[in-house]
Amino acid sequence: MAASEESLRKALAEKQSAVEAHGNAVRALKAAKASKPEIDAAIEALNSLKLEKSSIEKQLQAAVSGSDGDGALSREAFRQAAVNTLERRLFYIPSFKIYRGVAGLYDYGPPGCAVKSNVLAFWRQHFVLEENMLEVDCPCVTPEVVLKASGHVDKFTDLMVKDEKTGTCYRADHLLKDFCNEKLQKDLTISAEKAAELKHVLATLDDLSAEALGAKIKEYGITAPDTKNPLSDPYPFNLMFQTSIGPSGLSPGYMRPETAQGIFVNFKDLYYYNGNKLPFAAAQIGQAFRNEISPRQGLLRVREFTLAEIEHFVDPEDKSHPKYSEVVDLEFLMFPREEQMSGQSAKKIRLGDAVSKGTVNNETLGYFIGRVYLFLTRLGIDKDRLRFRQHLANEMAHYAADCWDAEIECSYGWIECVGIADRSAYDLRAHSEHHVKNVFDEGQRDGNIDFIGTNLDKSGVPLVAAEKFSEPREVEKLVIAPVKKELGLAFKGSQKNVVEALEAMNEKEALEMKAALESKGEVEFYVCTLGKNVPIKKNMVSISKEKKKEHQRVFTPSVIEPSFGIGRIIYCLFEHSFYTRPSKAGDEQLNVFRFPPLVAPIKCTVFPLVQNQQYEDVAKVISKSLTTAGISHKIDITGTSIGKRYARTDELGVPFAITVDSTKDVTIRERDSKLQVRVSVEEAALVVKSVTDGLRTWEDVWEKYPHHTSGSADD
Amino acid sequence: MAASEESLRKALAEKQSAVEAHGNAVRALKAAKASKPEIDAAIEALNSLKLEKSSIEKQLQAAVSGSDGDGALSREAFRQAAVNTLERRLFYIPSFKIYRGVAGLYDYGPPGCAVKSNVLAFWRQHFVLEENMLEVDCPCVTPEVVLKASGHVDKFTDLMVKDEKTGTCYRADHLLKDFCNEKLQKDLTISAEKAAELKHVLATLDDLSAEALGAKIKEYGITAPDTKNPLSDPYPFNLMFQTSIGPSGLSPGYMRPETAQGIFVNFKDLYYYNGNKLPFAAAQIGQAFRNEISPRQGLLRVREFTLAEIEHFVDPEDKSHPKYSEVVDLEFLMFPREEQMSGQSAKKIRLGDAVSKGTVNNETLGYFIGRVYLFLTRLGIDKDRLRFRQHLANEMAHYAADCWDAEIECSYGWIECVGIADRSAYDLRAHSEHHVKNVFDEGQRDGNIDFIGTNLDKSGVPLVAAEKFSEPREVEKLVIAPVKKELGLAFKGSQKNVVEALEAMNEKEALEMKAALESKGEVEFYVCTLGKNVPIKKNMVSISKEKKKEHQRVFTPSVIEPSFGIGRIIYCLFEHSFYTRPSKAGDEQLNVFRFPPLVAPIKCTVFPLVQNQQYEDVAKVISKSLTTAGISHKIDITGTSIGKRYARTDELGVPFAITVDSTKDVTIRERDSKLQVRVSVEEAALVVKSVTDGLRTWEDVWEKYPHHTSGSADD
Repeated sequence: MAASEESLRKALAEKQSAVEAHGNAVRALKAAKASKPEIDAAIEALNSLKLEKSSIEKQLQAAVSGSDGDGALSREAFRQAAVNTLERRLFYIPSFKIYRGVAGLYDYGPPGCAVKSNVLAFWRQHFVLEENMLEVDCPCVTPEVVLKASGHVDKFTDLMVKDEKTGTCYRADHLLKDFCNEKLQKDLTISAEKAAELKHVLATLDDLSAEALGAKIKEYGITAPDTKNPLSDPYPFNLMFQTSIGPSGLSPGYMRPETAQGIFVNFKDLYYYNGNKLPFAAAQIGQAFRNEISPRQGLLRVREFTLAEIEHFVDPEDKSHPKYSEVVDLEFLMFPREEQMSGQSAKKIRLGDAVSKGTVNNETLGYFIGRVYLFLTRLGIDKDRLRFRQHLANEMAHYAADCWDAEIECSYGWIECVGIADRSAYDLRAHSEHHVKNVFDEGQRDGNIDFIGTNLDKSGVPLVAAEKFSEPREVEKLVIAPVKKELGLAFKGSQKNVVEALEAMNEKEALEMKAALESKGEVEFYVCTLGKNVPIKKNMVSISKEKKKEHQRVFTPSVIEPSFGIGRIIYCLFEHSFYTRPSKAGDEQLNVFRFPPLVAPIKCTVFPLVQNQQYEDVAKVISKSLTTAGISHKIDITGTSIGKRYARTDELGVPFAITVDSTKDVTIRERDSKLQVRVSVEEAALVVKSVTDGLRTWEDVWEKYPHHTSGSADD
Repeated sequence: MAASEESLRKALAEKQSAVEAHGNAVRALKAAKASKPEIDAAIEALNSLKLEKSSIEKQLQAAVSGSDGDGALSREAFRQAAVNTLERRLFYIPSFKIYRGVAGLYDYGPPGCAVKSNVLAFWRQHFVLEENMLEVDCPCVTPEVVLKASGHVDKFTDLMVKDEKTGTCYRADHLLKDFCNEKLQKDLTISAEKAAELKHVLATLDDLSAEALGAKIKEYGITAPDTKNPLSDPYPFNLMFQTSIGPSGLSPGYMRPETAQGIFVNFKDLYYYNGNKLPFAAAQIGQAFRNEISPRQGLLRVREFTLAEIEHFVDPEDKSHPKYSEVVDLEFLMFPREEQMSGQSAKKIRLGDAVSKGTVNNETLGYFIGRVYLFLTRLGIDKDRLRFRQHLANEMAHYAADCWDAEIECSYGWIECVGIADRSAYDLRAHSEHHVKNVFDEGQRDGNIDFIGTNLDKSGVPLVAAEKFSEPREVEKLVIAPVKKELGLAFKGSQKNVVEALEAMNEKEALEMKAALESKGEVEFYVCTLGKNVPIKKNMVSISKEKKKEHQRVFTPSVIEPSFGIGRIIYCLFEHSFYTRPSKAGDEQLNVFRFPPLVAPIKCTVFPLVQNQQYEDVAKVISKSLTTAGISHKIDITGTSIGKRYARTDELGVPFAITVDSTKDVTIRERDSKLQVRVSVEEAALVVKSVTDGLRTWEDVWEKYPHHTSGSADD
């Protein structure tokens, strides 16, 4: 808890006691029929105490709602204005609206769809093409076995509670979070200790078990928000949309919760396609699905969304990156683990320093953090409202080496929009092992028993890479050689199981057995496929370390995964681009999106100043040259006033407008500055194209061409 | 049946009888111990009969397998070669292969994914941008109510039969089709009548009811293909993947079977976005899902696929198209209904003639047929293996005005790749009516009974358009005015139902009632919500025609829907682009895809002729200028022979290769002609770009630049 808030809570509690005590004193004076001046003086003292209390309340209110007391309110009003414009102009709308919609599903209308296409095209340019990534396109429908291996079937859950009377479902952590936030922000009477406790709950929310969450909900007396009915205990709800593949009803499947698995299962083919060379990256853009318990926050938490994911496969012993030097000097807001733990805030750090100090685990992870920073800021995300936050130890999966989220601040707070994780070898191993187990389970075991039963590191398991040595190297290798004859005599039909279990021992287990056999001559050995211990004698197995020449090193590559929530990025981009300015007459606020040309749904509009055939013909000529130049644009020949037409395109974030007001020269107006230049009809399209393609800036154009003298038409 | 086939079957049957009769004669001669010369002469006659029979058999075999007797066999071999290359180079591969895959699901690997991106980008350019369509992006997860309205929940089914012992499922029509085809092609002994019957079954397959299909399966003794077990009766299986939206389990949903519904439900907003003007088109690219009973034919019948759909909304009274003149002179293979019925084949028709003769229902439909032709042929589809086939009356939905399929011929036969249908007002009406019914069902009825109960044409139902008249027009309108007081007295609590039923009468019904009431004073009237007839007297309702001034005409727009199966188009494109040619040494066949640059996954490769720093530096300079020019390319610095490197890129369909064999000039080689020109290092990228962008042809380049003198490196 911030020091000021804590001391304010204490001061408020003291002042409250003082007010109560003084109130009693006044009442006592009145009861004792004290003199009027005496009573008046006491009342005046009481009032000044109340004033002091109210002042502390105000300060506390300001402290809990952020830097300014009206912050939450103005954020809300800003969002309302932006969302109204977005929905009215069909950037996005709730899906199936005529059927009263479905929570968590949205349609992108024409301008939103164009923005999304532009964002995805730039993503493909910035990542896939510039980095020579292998792009793939896999189905959304996924059989259960794949998501069992990845862990999603067992663990991709949120804790849910039900209204015990109506059956309405809620996310348990959301209810607890809302309760704590509301208490902290609206109830100024809670003690500093209570406030600290609630803040601790908020900080550890993601770690709470079902039991702990349930206990807190009971302790705080939280009920169903809509009905105030009691709630059930929390229980896990799997967030995948389930379905059934094929007509038999016997093949369960799910709509993929992420696109990554499609890449992992293809690792072997992609590695081969890349000439059996590491590192390389595969990428995929596609739909993913999460059956959220109670979607909220518009585009930020939805049930279907577009993900763009990169899986960069790298030798775990060499996580350098050839292009690291290109990002090393970038400086931006980073929020390392330690700063979060010690209550500091994000600060500007040079990426190279974060990597060299070990704050960021390795060069490749650092490289992608830098590339994500460039990607987001080029789209138009405000760099001062973008930070890279490192996962705390308790947030990170046990196998992950390091993980950073690109968080963007919007009216809902800091939102995770890109996750950049070094997931080590987890995903490929999960599929290798599960794959083997799966093949094994389905009775293909006898044909290649050597392959399947043995230690995975030794076998030809699919999802691995190999580093060929230029000349063979001598290595010490553990060799476990079961003596089949002896084992057969001792265990008969179970011989196979015992052999497999012996071969599956890791180095430590094997060396312990070797030592025990040498000292005692016999050990008890657990065979999991038999479910019991068996006695192993010295003559049944030979365990030794042998020197071997090896020609290659076989290993499971590490995966570094930047994963982009495209809808979240787009929503934050909408908010960062939105502003209002007064109309010419000053009687209303006009809405503008300051999209960079890269993102803008349309790059240019063409307006004949008045409805007249000559001007319309010129507009058509310009339109044709814009088409040839590949600039998306629109002609507006309605007779509406030019100011209204500007306002209409500003609301769509169109950066340039060409007004046809003569047959020789036309006016080009820039959206944000509202500045206008005069350009010949022949040049118009090329001027727009050069700025749109980033070959020159609007300032260059402003320098070069004559300015429109009669002032801007809309201002 | 083709005349020649029929007469051949008859001739074969006659010859067979002759052979049998003559065989008997020979045996009789032998039994009668006739003289050797006599027997020998008889045997010789028999042998020549057998020869004649065998010749007829060959002719018949040729007739049933197409133009050449080895057609099926060579098609199969061609496909095998193409698919081997496609899968080996990861154009596409079965999904989840390491888990032994799932039928009907495929991944696009890197080159396939690039081809798909290129096809979609061109689609967007050719249709969305050039026609100013409103593109939208809606979710795949769709609530049941939407697909109930569209008819998919009730009718989107295939007939299925089960192996009665193993439970394995088969598509009933596929089994019957396979049986008939096999019989026709392999059993030459069946009579001409039997053959005609089997052909009739094939022709009417799509129309057979479950009962008729079941009867045929029984009649022909068709059993399960894998086990020969008996089969169940056919029953409908819904092809949508079902799921459940939200945690309650109470909101059924489906993965959309097409993208069109997302557009229809947004009609009102899109119409408004378009300034309340018709015609306009909306478009959507996205995944669609069909849980096929038994997917086969690779990419052609899959369970998840990318659709690109256009819904062009038009005034049903004016289906002209402003850009129709741009396609009117196109000439290509068309296959009108009448030619199909009379056993002719597709023929070249000028599009303008087909429209003016009424073969194609209207200009807008014709315009889209022309645009689809241009789209497909520019992608690289062979125009001689592309035809537009009109639906037969029995294929078409009852509401459709006309429907044409763009069919592409590949090794599997003629495949429907694009459907272009005039669906009249069906889809918008379905949602309007269901929407109303839905609101009605859920108890919102009392508030606006006038709106809901009344004739839909009269009410403010959402999904309509309006044509504003420049001045009001006088129209005659039917007015049905139930006299509520009299109806209330007569029917008490059922009054509402009777009022609604009266108001819902169409013009014909109302005028008939009016006449009957005037002549008889009372009529029996069926009220469907009561499920019975009620007596209506003259004083209970007034029916009249009144003249009214109207300011606008309100109508449900017609929808013209071109719907593209992107995966099918891509597969056919793969086949049309694939060919083999002998290697330089002549010892093997090399594979080539002749993709046009527009489609090619990579436009250019850059090869240093030998491994040397100077050449690699030049390669990097060229690579940089290619990047600046926006040309996707790859450098191959492996030391492999140049011929092998060419073969490798030919297999990916890369149109150009730049070989660096000096530091001043380089060689550019064109894939299909294998011709090579010498170009300076500075010009290389621009030459490739100009051909790739279609600004000049390879022939122009060949004219202008010096030819590589030492002959082509790979030939």
